[in-house]
Amino acid sequence: MPTAIVLFSGGLDSTTCLALAKVSGYECHTVSFDYGQRHKAEMQAAQALSAHYGAKHHVIRLPTESFSGSALTDNSIDVPDHTGDSSIPVTYVPARNTIFLSFALGLAEVYKASAIFTGVSSIDYSHYPDCRPEFIQAFENMANLATKAAVEGSPVHIKTPLLHLSKAQTIALGTTLGVDYSQTISCYQANSSGEACGRCDSCSLRKQGFAEAKLTDVTRYTTPA
Amino acid sequence: MPTAIVLFSGGLDSTTCLALAKVSGYECHTVSFDYGQRHKAEMQAAQALSAHYGAKHHVIRLPTESFSGSALTDNSIDVPDHTGDSSIPVTYVPARNTIFLSFALGLAEVYKASAIFTGVSSIDYSHYPDCRPEFIQAFENMANLATKAAVEGSPVHIKTPLLHLSKAQTIALGTTLGVDYSQTISCYQANSSGEACGRCDSCSLRKQGFAEAKLTDVTRYTTPA
Repeated sequence: MPTAIVLFSGGLDSTTCLALAKVSGYECHTVSFDYGQRHKAEMQAAQALSAHYGAKHHVIRLPTESFSGSALTDNSIDVPDHTGDSSIPVTYVPARNTIFLSFALGLAEVYKASAIFTGVSSIDYSHYPDCRPEFIQAFENMANLATKAAVEGSPVHIKTPLLHLSKAQTIALGTTLGVDYSQTISCYQANSSGEACGRCDSCSLRKQGFAEAKLTDVTRYTTPA
Repeated sequence: MPTAIVLFSGGLDSTTCLALAKVSGYECHTVSFDYGQRHKAEMQAAQALSAHYGAKHHVIRLPTESFSGSALTDNSIDVPDHTGDSSIPVTYVPARNTIFLSFALGLAEVYKASAIFTGVSSIDYSHYPDCRPEFIQAFENMANLATKAAVEGSPVHIKTPLLHLSKAQTIALGTTLGVDYSQTISCYQANSSGEACGRCDSCSLRKQGFAEAKLTDVTRYTTPA
């Protein structure tokens, strides 16, 4: 059975990825990062969902300094409401996906994994540069020059099954796989019970996804949806 | 004045890099990683040398789990004596340079640095895949697709001034720049006073470098050199 490392926030996208990796026959390790982000309820969701899918859950605690200057980690910057603006927002975290994928690469080598799954999408995303296909391809190229495993003939593949899916398509796919989205947390500022704000970029995209997929939005909101 | 992030272990190579970055006119930030490696005396040397060169020193504490399986971090594996063998040794740490450079990339964006210096060499190295020129080029390509800074027109350059230098050439270069190599620590198992074993791969390459450069080996050894 091949092994996969799944970058796993406990959100809608990464849970869909995990369900896909499982159904594709991978033994899965999930990896979550704790870097002082606001949405700590995510971590509990990630743990419970990993257990549900029989995946070993790794939590990597990272120093927050290199992530300063983002509304996701700096309490002095407010998480903005969704505006539909196409510029890179203040929720952007410097080099985040690069750092996450680099740790996944280390874990992949340790656990002899042939795949790293990440739920990035180039369709309904928040204009983060490190969610684009060209970034993912460049990371895979680099990764396969970086490790002893790759040099010795066991390359790693960065799997991005949601890259060309809209949020609605992702939700439709996950629903066919039996994903219970009420247990996933996408909100940038979920409360300690895991209830979503319903207003941030992430909530807005998710809400719109359920609407477009013509599926009931099972998200638990703090304010009426 | 341009700003640079310098990957900095407090060893011979990275100290030469720092001296070069300074003389090239960069305002420097040094970054060291604490990941449970054996040679903690390095960290004290890194701090003292950063202060000497007027660089702001960042220490990033990383979880050790993703670095398991290496003689540098796992006390159950002995650091081997130098053999001259050309295979990838047990001191190899999975995805180490990828992870280090990824954090440097995050810091580069936060501090608006246009360069990241790393002291890798493809000549007198220990057969680590992530010290090869093709890896460095692939990392730079990836980095400039990853960040908001790059997308907005401020790319980062990965500077590897020692890439094609032998250890002897590096020592000769650093000596002309006034580097005090007695304060640098390269040994994989330096003691708490910063004295080197004189037998590991790293000590062996360094010792040979001083000999080939026809310069006095100022390294402090625990056993007679």
